[in-house]
Amino acid sequence: MYTELFGQMKKQLGQIDAWFVAAEALAVSKKFDANLLLEMRLAPDQFALVRQVQITCDTAKLGASRITGREAPSHADTEKTFAELRARIASVIAYLETFTAGDFESAATRTVTQPRWEGKVMSTADYFVEHVIPNFYFHLAHTFAILRHNGVNVGKRDYLGTLSQRLP
Amino acid sequence: MYTELFGQMKKQLGQIDAWFVAAEALAVSKKFDANLLLEMRLAPDQFALVRQVQITCDTAKLGASRITGREAPSHADTEKTFAELRARIASVIAYLETFTAGDFESAATRTVTQPRWEGKVMSTADYFVEHVIPNFYFHLAHTFAILRHNGVNVGKRDYLGTLSQRLP
Repeated sequence: MYTELFGQMKKQLGQIDAWFVAAEALAVSKKFDANLLLEMRLAPDQFALVRQVQITCDTAKLGASRITGREAPSHADTEKTFAELRARIASVIAYLETFTAGDFESAATRTVTQPRWEGKVMSTADYFVEHVIPNFYFHLAHTFAILRHNGVNVGKRDYLGTLSQRLP
Repeated sequence: MYTELFGQMKKQLGQIDAWFVAAEALAVSKKFDANLLLEMRLAPDQFALVRQVQITCDTAKLGASRITGREAPSHADTEKTFAELRARIASVIAYLETFTAGDFESAATRTVTQPRWEGKVMSTADYFVEHVIPNFYFHLAHTFAILRHNGVNVGKRDYLGTLSQRLP
């Protein structure tokens, strides 16, 4: 299910554009600089919007990279505008589009580690289920929540996007 | 991967207890009724905390029910206290614990529908990936965000819980 779940992450990253459009519309109607929203946060000890988007991107990008063993593009975390964040998101979507089901076939035999895990490892499946999915959606939902909290006109449909529904 | 991802949802539901403990500790230290937090929300047109928890529970419960065709326990959405929400969460965790890998084996041949979908259906896999997972984590993260926004002392470790790490 790696392919489907990373495909969904790609779709969710694409949905952020609609939230940014709504954020920019609010900024125009209220006559403020839209990029000021990038520094908004829900609590002083939580990350601001710009960092929430960066981590959402990195969780998907590094998740795919670590699970498959394929190298990931590097991003410098220097974005200061919606335009720059859009470019980052597009770069991660383009990276995720290069993966095939075959890339994930060797996942079962690989382990994952990170510098701060002090030498410990996780199986790729545990890493994906316990770390990638919960973290990706945590930062994605916080991105949405910060915008909504600041009056941006977005709803659940903008979050989920179009569902693959059909007539029976 | 249904078993692992529902297992993770069960774990995430269990993590909420630690957030409630921290919420109650804040209420004691600031001398307010902890249950007042249940009515807090991030925006006037978003659900309050109590509803976020109810929907988090229902998304996992109904997801497992619809994917497997097994009946789900009914919950009346009448909770007014942390104690009542804890009971609801415990009920859903107990329900999820009754599922085996075998329950999900027939998922591939089943479709899912909901009254508001106007007769349309989704494959169980699409429903799970596009609807259950994104919605479950959306409302889980909003539960966390509302508490954090109101000064409750919770962090990412309380969100994720213990990871399955081991020495290589």
